Amino acid sequence: MWGDAWPRFSCVPWFHFRLASSAQGELVRKMKAESAPDVDVTKAVAELKARKKMLEAKELALQPKDDIVDRTKMEDTLKRRFFYDQAFAIYGGVSGLYDFGPVGCALKNNILQVWRQHFIQEEQILEIDCTMLTPESVLKTSGHVDKFADYMVKDVMNGECFRADHLLKAHLQKLMSDKKCTAEKKNEMEGVITQMDNYSQQELADLFVQYNVKSPSTGNDLTPPISFNLMFQTSIGPGGNMSGYLRPETAQGIFLNFKRLLEFNQGKLPFAAAQIGNSFRNEISPRSGLIRVREFTMAEIEHFVDPDEKVHSKFSNVADLEILLYSSKAQTSGQSAHIMRLGDAVEQGVINNSVLGYFIGRIYLYLIKVGVAKDKLRFRQHMDNEMAHYACDCWDAETKTSYGWIEIVGCADRSCYDLLCHARATRVPLVAERPLKELISLTWTSFEPNKGAIGKTYRKEAKLVMDFLAACDECYVTDQEKLLSENGEFTIEIDGTTFKLTKDMVNVKRFQKTLHVEDIVPNVIEPSFGIGRIMYSIFEHTFHIREGDEQRTLKP
Amino acid sequence: MWGDAWPRFSCVPWFHFRLASSAQGELVRKMKAESAPDVDVTKAVAELKARKKMLEAKELALQPKDDIVDRTKMEDTLKRRFFYDQAFAIYGGVSGLYDFGPVGCALKNNILQVWRQHFIQEEQILEIDCTMLTPESVLKTSGHVDKFADYMVKDVMNGECFRADHLLKAHLQKLMSDKKCTAEKKNEMEGVITQMDNYSQQELADLFVQYNVKSPSTGNDLTPPISFNLMFQTSIGPGGNMSGYLRPETAQGIFLNFKRLLEFNQGKLPFAAAQIGNSFRNEISPRSGLIRVREFTMAEIEHFVDPDEKVHSKFSNVADLEILLYSSKAQTSGQSAHIMRLGDAVEQGVINNSVLGYFIGRIYLYLIKVGVAKDKLRFRQHMDNEMAHYACDCWDAETKTSYGWIEIVGCADRSCYDLLCHARATRVPLVAERPLKELISLTWTSFEPNKGAIGKTYRKEAKLVMDFLAACDECYVTDQEKLLSENGEFTIEIDGTTFKLTKDMVNVKRFQKTLHVEDIVPNVIEPSFGIGRIMYSIFEHTFHIREGDEQRTLKP
Repeated sequence: MWGDAWPRFSCVPWFHFRLASSAQGELVRKMKAESAPDVDVTKAVAELKARKKMLEAKELALQPKDDIVDRTKMEDTLKRRFFYDQAFAIYGGVSGLYDFGPVGCALKNNILQVWRQHFIQEEQILEIDCTMLTPESVLKTSGHVDKFADYMVKDVMNGECFRADHLLKAHLQKLMSDKKCTAEKKNEMEGVITQMDNYSQQELADLFVQYNVKSPSTGNDLTPPISFNLMFQTSIGPGGNMSGYLRPETAQGIFLNFKRLLEFNQGKLPFAAAQIGNSFRNEISPRSGLIRVREFTMAEIEHFVDPDEKVHSKFSNVADLEILLYSSKAQTSGQSAHIMRLGDAVEQGVINNSVLGYFIGRIYLYLIKVGVAKDKLRFRQHMDNEMAHYACDCWDAETKTSYGWIEIVGCADRSCYDLLCHARATRVPLVAERPLKELISLTWTSFEPNKGAIGKTYRKEAKLVMDFLAACDECYVTDQEKLLSENGEFTIEIDGTTFKLTKDMVNVKRFQKTLHVEDIVPNVIEPSFGIGRIMYSIFEHTFHIREGDEQRTLKP
Repeated sequence: MWGDAWPRFSCVPWFHFRLASSAQGELVRKMKAESAPDVDVTKAVAELKARKKMLEAKELALQPKDDIVDRTKMEDTLKRRFFYDQAFAIYGGVSGLYDFGPVGCALKNNILQVWRQHFIQEEQILEIDCTMLTPESVLKTSGHVDKFADYMVKDVMNGECFRADHLLKAHLQKLMSDKKCTAEKKNEMEGVITQMDNYSQQELADLFVQYNVKSPSTGNDLTPPISFNLMFQTSIGPGGNMSGYLRPETAQGIFLNFKRLLEFNQGKLPFAAAQIGNSFRNEISPRSGLIRVREFTMAEIEHFVDPDEKVHSKFSNVADLEILLYSSKAQTSGQSAHIMRLGDAVEQGVINNSVLGYFIGRIYLYLIKVGVAKDKLRFRQHMDNEMAHYACDCWDAETKTSYGWIEIVGCADRSCYDLLCHARATRVPLVAERPLKELISLTWTSFEPNKGAIGKTYRKEAKLVMDFLAACDECYVTDQEKLLSENGEFTIEIDGTTFKLTKDMVNVKRFQKTLHVEDIVPNVIEPSFGIGRIMYSIFEHTFHIREGDEQRTLKP
């Protein structure tokens, strides 16, 4: 919906924006090279993003009129023929929830069936089907409980909620459109809008006070911005003590089953698992039809790969594809997206590795197959500052629609972030074994306890002692060995209790051990498909109004 | 799990139960014929049900040993080969939640694809796809908010929850197994167990006190039984004022879209709609593996039909099928299920109508096609007292498993219950039009308002007045007409405000109208498939242990 924000630029030639964007890109690069303070870089980057948006809005505004779908007419057709419509309409409807009718449902099934054929079958991916209900502990680890949130403000009288950034932006735009608004004021507010994504909760609160923002519906005061988690919460079981959520993505189910899947694949890397299913996001104020909904179908692949071997054996199959790429570098230097041979993009390092490159090629082929228009599809690389902290490269498949360019598939290299997090939280090692090229021979040092003697002395607590001894590392064992030979005993402490161990209870043994494998945490390449958004793109790209005929036809 | 409850009868010949059951059936029929008090009939029916259970347990116990699957070995195989396994296992697991691995997921997809082919394609059913999130108002109307509940008791110290009826039963069985327990006491407790399903909340509470039931884990006191709703509750949107639930069945989504679907079918009856998707039930203490879970995939069909034309045009296609039927009458008279030609069953009124009969035949063919064993499949009719209050006939497809006979598909004639409820709650008429055989000519009487005059007098409120006048029935119009001619005016009251209407503002007009159609509320036949239970049945029916080989094979 950002396209709505820039109507005032309609009389400015588009190349001004291109120049402005390019200059700002130079500035950012220079600042980074000179190690300018973080806060300045962030500000400059935000400014750059804003200029890019202006540029894109301008480019979209300049394109031939017949290329833009009459959205009202199209949506009217889609609803009249029951492709989809608002859910619970006879009860007044719930925003952000849609039901698919017979034609929409058939289309969705076809899209999913082609997906299964194109990915699961042809790539021999392991499909699994996990529950949507998810206990809190899992989503605490994944970071969703703490970070999956937007700021909102509430009308203090009637409790109506607004997304803080959207409301502040709209308010400032209204102020700026006032003829009495000075150029200086305008400039200041322009700056606030540019920085919108970077404000902290407190900064947002201050801005609401500074600009005296009230509820647009009632004029009432608003609460300060509060963080609103976008997950639907519920309680699992009758006790009320197991908090749970509806999953916000299907990926976590795959990470949690990593060990079983690796075993299913005979312990070998690389392999991929996938899941098709619904996810849920409790948007604060969903609009934009099928683009922003509270319940949606996703299809996600997690391709697990040895971090030192990010090479895809089948990459040559897609290397000759010519795809519209919009690299991070092109964006920061104010260039347009341009068509590139996929093989060249990987070779030149535009795309980080051939695994990522392979999936970009396969995603491209899939989208074309199901009906996305080739000339309205591009792959845009995330810029450094918009990438999730765990990702090392990320490309979004975007389609051009009446809402502007929208993301329909994400393709991220998530490195080893997820497996590591869950392994730390559960103490279950989520690793694969890699054969060592050269075997390693080690001298292994460990305690050799005398079970009988320890049992006789410590009875019920003997197991505690035995477990403790089994878990000691070489360094500790060697230290205690010294004490044992000097004093004939040493002590250990378990949960506050001290145990004395004497020579008759424990020895130290040394033996040679040859290692054939080492443990590695696989990296993950994640193509993630928003099925509803793909459907919406197909609707727009295939909608035609018969010339000179009020009757409208749609042919997906 | 009821099979566990009757070990003490293992030395009693099975025909005793058959006789006992038969005699009780006679008694019930006699009581009903003599219009005995409801409470007595209920008690007798409950006793009858209990005797039936004994009979079935006995019959199951008598069957050849090799017919019973070694469930532990089978489940071990299923988990080892990752057909399915407990969800969130590395976080300790959540009972009642399972993930399907690659093989289970492929099997599930195949089962669903055959379902789509067999029903959606071959029967030309309209498939739709509705949201799982459902606002409270919808489920209030459907009765789920008030009635979809089980009684539970809580440990007053640690809060552990138990399903009240299960716990009381287990407690009484323990008391009865005590050698010191007198025959009289045993008899009394036997009576309580028999009546278990019929107790009110207060009666259950009294029984917990009477038998001094404590927590089986801690020996602590228990709270009195409280009603626990089995739906997962959540909050939709950020305001916290729209309560919602995860749907407990997919059917409601179809009823809510009835008008759109009827329109899609050009207003004609009969037609059917279907939905495949997940539903959720927050079971108090789920056990029994895939049989009783908190999140499960259903496939439901709602076949809408003119209540006066419950005849299926394709019934002859299935009339010759020979199916194991266990009619309500057979159950109450203590007979076994027996094989019947479907055509005969409908002709003799064993099955209420040929629409229901047709679906029973189609369900049968489907289940055989996906791998359910023919000789372990029966259709059991609900007895009068176990049928939902809205249903006029109901047959469950049941399979024989190591848990006993379990329901895997329900096939109910829900009459017009659901559409009527939602129509009443929303004031949206959920009806179809039926052409009248003889046209009806009516004199229509209504107000003819003078828009200008009313607008001039009542300004902003004119629309209110106009709407009010448009909605008046003939009787009211005639009454006001009298006042108008006598006094030259009459008054109406809208939301506490009185409006005076004079001759220049409103006339009464009469005209002839010929009715070609009448409105009818369609009846609904609902086949409802539990996909997980079908899968589980297939697992048991196809599991084999190779003779003399520890290796186990499973061939679905």
